[in-house]
Amino acid sequence: MNHTDNQRWVLRRRPESAPGPDDLEFVSSPVDELGDEQILVKNLLLSLDPTNRLWMSDRDQYLPPVEIGEIMRGTTIGVVEQSRSDRFDAGDTVLLGEGGWQTHSVAPGSAARRLRPVEGLPLQSHLSVLGMTGLTAYVGLLDICQPREGETLVVSAAAGAVGSVVGQIAKIKGCRVIGIAGGPDKCRWIVDELGFDGAIDYKSEAVGDALDRLCPDGIDMDFENVGGPIMDAVFSRLNKGGRMALCGMISGYNTEGPLAGPTDFGRVLMNRLTIRGFVVIDHLDRSADARRDLVQWITDGKITWKDHIVDGLENATDALSRLFSGAHDGKLLVRVAQ
Amino acid sequence: MNHTDNQRWVLRRRPESAPGPDDLEFVSSPVDELGDEQILVKNLLLSLDPTNRLWMSDRDQYLPPVEIGEIMRGTTIGVVEQSRSDRFDAGDTVLLGEGGWQTHSVAPGSAARRLRPVEGLPLQSHLSVLGMTGLTAYVGLLDICQPREGETLVVSAAAGAVGSVVGQIAKIKGCRVIGIAGGPDKCRWIVDELGFDGAIDYKSEAVGDALDRLCPDGIDMDFENVGGPIMDAVFSRLNKGGRMALCGMISGYNTEGPLAGPTDFGRVLMNRLTIRGFVVIDHLDRSADARRDLVQWITDGKITWKDHIVDGLENATDALSRLFSGAHDGKLLVRVAQ
Repeated sequence: MNHTDNQRWVLRRRPESAPGPDDLEFVSSPVDELGDEQILVKNLLLSLDPTNRLWMSDRDQYLPPVEIGEIMRGTTIGVVEQSRSDRFDAGDTVLLGEGGWQTHSVAPGSAARRLRPVEGLPLQSHLSVLGMTGLTAYVGLLDICQPREGETLVVSAAAGAVGSVVGQIAKIKGCRVIGIAGGPDKCRWIVDELGFDGAIDYKSEAVGDALDRLCPDGIDMDFENVGGPIMDAVFSRLNKGGRMALCGMISGYNTEGPLAGPTDFGRVLMNRLTIRGFVVIDHLDRSADARRDLVQWITDGKITWKDHIVDGLENATDALSRLFSGAHDGKLLVRVAQ
Repeated sequence: MNHTDNQRWVLRRRPESAPGPDDLEFVSSPVDELGDEQILVKNLLLSLDPTNRLWMSDRDQYLPPVEIGEIMRGTTIGVVEQSRSDRFDAGDTVLLGEGGWQTHSVAPGSAARRLRPVEGLPLQSHLSVLGMTGLTAYVGLLDICQPREGETLVVSAAAGAVGSVVGQIAKIKGCRVIGIAGGPDKCRWIVDELGFDGAIDYKSEAVGDALDRLCPDGIDMDFENVGGPIMDAVFSRLNKGGRMALCGMISGYNTEGPLAGPTDFGRVLMNRLTIRGFVVIDHLDRSADARRDLVQWITDGKITWKDHIVDGLENATDALSRLFSGAHDGKLLVRVAQ
């Protein structure tokens, strides 16, 4: 029997609006015994993502919702403490796609992926620029938007973990890039540090007017993370042959019911637009390409990113709420253990 | 000077709802003199299409609207009566993409295309199954929807000039095909004569319930001609990876203002849907392929179609209104002259 306690967050109820501390419960119990082929992982880092809010709802979505009483779903990085799998030894560093919001995960060895460190990059980069968020940006821009040199891209949540990488890849591909972000600091960062051609602070500017000013020739691509009126402002300025990669609709996740689309859907027809929704888990076959290119671009100084690490699993719910107020700076992670 | 009179319909005002006889004016004046490189064509047949209603409005659209006082835009087939172009002689049969709603067209030779008759097919087939409507069906299904064997397609306005060909090509490609049409006769025709797997009479059935019954495994492709609540019923049942080819939104053309889209746009994300609007004029490079395949399929008895010919240019406005009430049967054409 294991004598270590596993601390974890379980879903207590479905949030009615922004996820709050009473929606999850922090509980503790001894770690489960290992079954055949299983490994025990001590988690070091937990990824927090907008999609977590979807999993807490019973909205029709791309994975089954987390059930009430179940451990909250999330990707972790940790160290193998015990192994009954041939594939791993104690001491191995692994990534668990569904490690969960807990200090210790018991999982089949087949659910873990060994992490090969990349020189000069911190461990948490495997949950951010080299992880799912980097892959999301890579696939969403290159495969879904299919940028051509000289085209104009607008990306929302542009200072976020995905958006900031999207904009930088688009610059590498020769596009004009305008980012929509909240607040002067984020806007300064994406222009001054990341090289975007322009930024719109949606908290202080009318997005449509700013788009008219910054995109006088219209918009060819919308990398859409936000939905709602911001999406509509970009959509309604898409040029003939324009593309929207629909990556997220975070502005609507805290409300129940349908997520609104563009006001004038007729533009899809008149302007021959393509709208394509995508979820990164369908595109894991591009992981090796993304990793190769992203490591190269980082080495060349063409891609910069920020990780925002919150210490302590007990602070995970507080941290999650930051995603929805924008009170975070870069990819949001929880340090579960040193 | 020409002594022949040209009779024509000019746009008098923009329709407020369904196009009526007072929105256009039937006028007559002598045919213009030919300039260099021009031809005079006596029109025999005029194509009527839902998109005509768009051109009568000043809605933002894929071609410039017809201006008040201008001749109504339309594709014609006719015979060259006089030629100052090296490319044509008197007596040639030609297709004029913008021949217009008139008995005689004066056009540059470069705007005309010589028609090569296809054995066994009537002249008007160049305005229907071998014309733009056939090409629309061909491109929209094969290039935009990209059907795979065994997938389920739903097509709206399924007994129409485009929809009826879409469904038959989809059957050739091994798909399950459900058509949405208005009235028992049309529904019977698409199932009994065209081989659709099922039909929904939107005038007498709840479309959503019928789709649930006829598409128990969901819908992979929506070939959308109608828009509005019918589109939404199909959209909301699209499977993961589903595609919508947005070809038309006829249900909204008679009203001003934005054309509504799906209620729950979030499904685009959750189900990784692709929505693509298209207009056939962007796909003329596929004309030869479409013609080759369609002629073969017609010869093999795999494609059937109906042309609905209304006699007399003076009846064109009455005829156009049929498109919006569904009181026509197949591709709608006007016989301008014998």
